[in-house]
Amino acid sequence: MSIVALLTDFGLKDGYVGVMKGVIWGIAPTAQIADITHAIQPQNVLEGALALGRAARYFPEGTVFIAVVDPGVGTARRPLAAKLGSRYFVGPDNGLFSVVLNQAEAAGDETVFYHLDRPEYWLKDVSNVFHGRDIFAPVGAHLAAGELVEKMGTRIADPLRIEIPRPVKTARGWRGQVLHEDAFGNLAANLGAAEVGDGQDVVIEIGGQTIRGLVKSFGERPVGELVAMLDSAGLLSIAVVNGSAAARLKLGTGALLEITIQSR
Amino acid sequence: MSIVALLTDFGLKDGYVGVMKGVIWGIAPTAQIADITHAIQPQNVLEGALALGRAARYFPEGTVFIAVVDPGVGTARRPLAAKLGSRYFVGPDNGLFSVVLNQAEAAGDETVFYHLDRPEYWLKDVSNVFHGRDIFAPVGAHLAAGELVEKMGTRIADPLRIEIPRPVKTARGWRGQVLHEDAFGNLAANLGAAEVGDGQDVVIEIGGQTIRGLVKSFGERPVGELVAMLDSAGLLSIAVVNGSAAARLKLGTGALLEITIQSR
Amino acid sequence: MSIVALLTDFGLKDGYVGVMKGVIWGIAPTAQIADITHAIQPQNVLEGALALGRAARYFPEGTVFIAVVDPGVGTARRPLAAKLGSRYFVGPDNGLFSVVLNQAEAAGDETVFYHLDRPEYWLKDVSNVFHGRDIFAPVGAHLAAGELVEKMGTRIADPLRIEIPRPVKTARGWRGQVLHEDAFGNLAANLGAAEVGDGQDVVIEIGGQTIRGLVKSFGERPVGELVAMLDSAGLLSIAVVNGSAAARLKLGTGALLEITIQSR
Repeated sequence: MSIVALLTDFGLKDGYVGVMKGVIWGIAPTAQIADITHAIQPQNVLEGALALGRAARYFPEGTVFIAVVDPGVGTARRPLAAKLGSRYFVGPDNGLFSVVLNQAEAAGDETVFYHLDRPEYWLKDVSNVFHGRDIFAPVGAHLAAGELVEKMGTRIADPLRIEIPRPVKTARGWRGQVLHEDAFGNLAANLGAAEVGDGQDVVIEIGGQTIRGLVKSFGERPVGELVAMLDSAGLLSIAVVNGSAAARLKLGTGALLEITIQSR
Repeated sequence: MSIVALLTDFGLKDGYVGVMKGVIWGIAPTAQIADITHAIQPQNVLEGALALGRAARYFPEGTVFIAVVDPGVGTARRPLAAKLGSRYFVGPDNGLFSVVLNQAEAAGDETVFYHLDRPEYWLKDVSNVFHGRDIFAPVGAHLAAGELVEKMGTRIADPLRIEIPRPVKTARGWRGQVLHEDAFGNLAANLGAAEVGDGQDVVIEIGGQTIRGLVKSFGERPVGELVAMLDSAGLLSIAVVNGSAAARLKLGTGALLEITIQSR
Repeated sequence: MSIVALLTDFGLKDGYVGVMKGVIWGIAPTAQIADITHAIQPQNVLEGALALGRAARYFPEGTVFIAVVDPGVGTARRPLAAKLGSRYFVGPDNGLFSVVLNQAEAAGDETVFYHLDRPEYWLKDVSNVFHGRDIFAPVGAHLAAGELVEKMGTRIADPLRIEIPRPVKTARGWRGQVLHEDAFGNLAANLGAAEVGDGQDVVIEIGGQTIRGLVKSFGERPVGELVAMLDSAGLLSIAVVNGSAAARLKLGTGALLEITIQSR
């Protein structure tokens, strides 16, 4: 039984995601389908790429990811399929797979991309506005049903990649930025143990507040305290114990952090 | 493996939809279950009927749709099952199936309705407020498990139908209205190629703005431009490239459009 | 085919729930997974316990519930699994299972709790902030795959229980409180038929309004009328016909009701 995971900016109110599942099950009736998220900000490819990068590794080998954040739908931007290590990715060629591609390269996995150019694997009528339904869902379903990816497209070497904001080395440490504000109001930055070590010697300035050292869990500090920790993705995250750092600091994605590594 | 698709106005926060899935799997343990949407405005039967009409055709033959937008729950309104072509529909007799019925009739499909009057196919205790759980989920599950629809009810010829707003012919073209505002802020009207052809000669007035001609995809025009196109359902849709027409025009469902077909 | 049902305060936007499904399917590839709700107010254990209590009984015997509302994640609070009657529950030891435990005891079902202390059933790397992914999803998946609960932990007799607010007997009847405001704006209180009988002789005061007697269904009264009824969970619920009692009364969870049982 194969697994399909969906990530889009479609929201849940209009039925677009349900329609994709109908199309998938028409081709791969036994596929298991999970939603990663459909709440990516409309047309925000970077946000989609980061969300996919947080989730993909936790799905089994062989999972087919269909990701659609697609401001260029209906233009010359290519429809893609990729095999990164043991997982498949289907969606537009606009950088949406940049983070999982970075991860695969860092892991030394094989990375292969295909331009989807075989309409016999698509729905018969292809609109100019909903390739999630008309191209990506059917291609993903054929992959889930066991069809070979190389039959559905032509191999390419130049998928579009977008820049993922990286931390900047400073005289005293690092300047990072918040890449993800989650539903709890935790603010995850683009740094991790590689930059801050165990965090004992770290001083973080964000939004006019100063945080000294990292905690290992929320329970170490009283409710309402502003803390920093390495989160479940290994990233430096600013949080309020049983509260929202985003609300406390009135900050979100893009906010800057100054990290000082103190010499002992 | 059979497929069940759910559409309700229950929202996702209270667990009502999850409970329906529990009931379904108690009867049909291998059914695949998809959510179409649970964000229909409470008690808005027309909105539910339109959403079902947008989605149903993309699900495989044999799919069982359970749709519950049910302001009359607990009254004399009948519980229904329908077979429209090769698909099944279960829900209240209040017009919720009007659009899919129109579609089936237009396609020349067989259309058969049943008054669900055999409580042996329901949960043992039936509340007056949650027939989605107590009647429609179990009946839909029995259909998904292969039970014959004619065993669960008595055939009827008079399901309630509601009026779907139709465009009005004017001296210069058509007067239409917006039937659906989606999560992107696209405004889909009740006209399509039948009324506007390829749209070359069309002038659209909506919310004090004038749009000349149709585009084929968003990418033809710069970000932020107000455009009109035939959308993925074949309907005339007003959109802003990488933006929200609903926000730009401060309009939504029910807004009027004046369409002028210019003679060449 | 086994069933897993998820209830969390994670929201749907960040992909945390999707990741849990990926982990589950990595261990139990054929499990059916339903979402009960992921919209529990962050860290609100009581709200989670009540939502689980409304839903669990409608799932088939053998269902594995993974519930995560977990303000103490990463502290000494124990990870738990429970077998209550024929259903399994996995989550933190913070009272989240208090309502289903009360229900099981009231039904005379067997109730057994285990402290999950066998890391070989968890993900290899366990974070301090996401035990839903690292401990509870894998343990629930092993249960769904047929592993014995007693192999995954050590039996305990002292799971943490939280107080569920109970109605108070007064001179003229009962004082209750609203435990749940649903998406329709219906306000469900902590009383039922045991306290108010068939409701013929009941006068309810809430938010300065007085409601006399109970209706059996919304259709008995005109649109817009404030009514009281026994809802689909058997609880006394305040509603507005085709409207929102919460909006009308500007009240929600925690609001008080004075119930007078009139002598005949």
